[in-house]
Amino acid sequence: MKRTEKVQLQERVYQMLRKAGIVIAPEEQKNIEIADLGLDDIENCGLQVVVYENNDRYCAKELIQFPRQLCPEHRHPQIGEGNIGKQETFRCRWGELYLYVDGQPTPDPKARIPDKYREYLTVWKEIVLRPGDQYTLPADTKHWFQAGDEGCIVSEFSSASIDEEDVFTDPRVRRVPDVEPD
Amino acid sequence: MKRTEKVQLQERVYQMLRKAGIVIAPEEQKNIEIADLGLDDIENCGLQVVVYENNDRYCAKELIQFPRQLCPEHRHPQIGEGNIGKQETFRCRWGELYLYVDGQPTPDPKARIPDKYREYLTVWKEIVLRPGDQYTLPADTKHWFQAGDEGCIVSEFSSASIDEEDVFTDPRVRRVPDVEPD
Repeated sequence: MKRTEKVQLQERVYQMLRKAGIVIAPEEQKNIEIADLGLDDIENCGLQVVVYENNDRYCAKELIQFPRQLCPEHRHPQIGEGNIGKQETFRCRWGELYLYVDGQPTPDPKARIPDKYREYLTVWKEIVLRPGDQYTLPADTKHWFQAGDEGCIVSEFSSASIDEEDVFTDPRVRRVPDVEPD
Repeated sequence: MKRTEKVQLQERVYQMLRKAGIVIAPEEQKNIEIADLGLDDIENCGLQVVVYENNDRYCAKELIQFPRQLCPEHRHPQIGEGNIGKQETFRCRWGELYLYVDGQPTPDPKARIPDKYREYLTVWKEIVLRPGDQYTLPADTKHWFQAGDEGCIVSEFSSASIDEEDVFTDPRVRRVPDVEPD
């Protein structure tokens, strides 16, 4: 992703946060993460993140998803002896999130998935999160999510976050910084 | 505290959250904690809490302080072998918080403390938190805080929270549920 595009997307995220009444500091605004996951298809697939705090004990972030944007299926694996994998709680602050986890597949799910991403989504038990709703994912369990038609803002509370260790089902995904100079 | 008083205070907290655009679920609204710390002086001293999640790895809460309400000095001590004490991050969402920690005392601090509580406040290095500001307290360190003139709402992200183990400097404080039937 080119830097000019990244800056435009950061501004869009900032305006969504403003609309939801969520204040971030100027330094945080500059550092909004635009994760296109190496797919170069940010409108359909990726995520935007403001990391508030991430230390070896806990982590807190704001996730901002554009309308119908997909975060593809992944899990947070065990890391060494002392960490059984990241456990995380999603709390919806604004908009609507469709979250999918292992279990009985939900008939007629709300997600709308482009064909090119569908085959790598293997868990289909749906949890719908609206403002004030939350859901806690056990460590090392597969999940994916898509925002509703307006997008969404979700607070993520978790144990320590080590994004580069995430295991994605889709082999095309790369969870790496992805900015090219203009 | 009598139950009718508690319900009124819960409604006041709920209205503050609404004003700040923070949505909580009906069950959370019913369970808003009004902690008067055994002092029966909630307007001046105590705290109000919505616990979103508290498990053995991490915790997330919303703290809602009434105007100029004091949370008295305390620390979160080591608990057994595996827990060096609770580490916590305060992130201001609305209003203003004056936080005090160990270090060079701040001249002319913003806190205004009733005489009866002053002698048990021993750390006076001031940190002012406004919306978008945050501060992380190391485990087992003394701190206290007071809201500004409008009150405040602060997100607390932390390691596991075991409130009943908190050590307060003021021996009059009791961190226990405090509702009497009417």
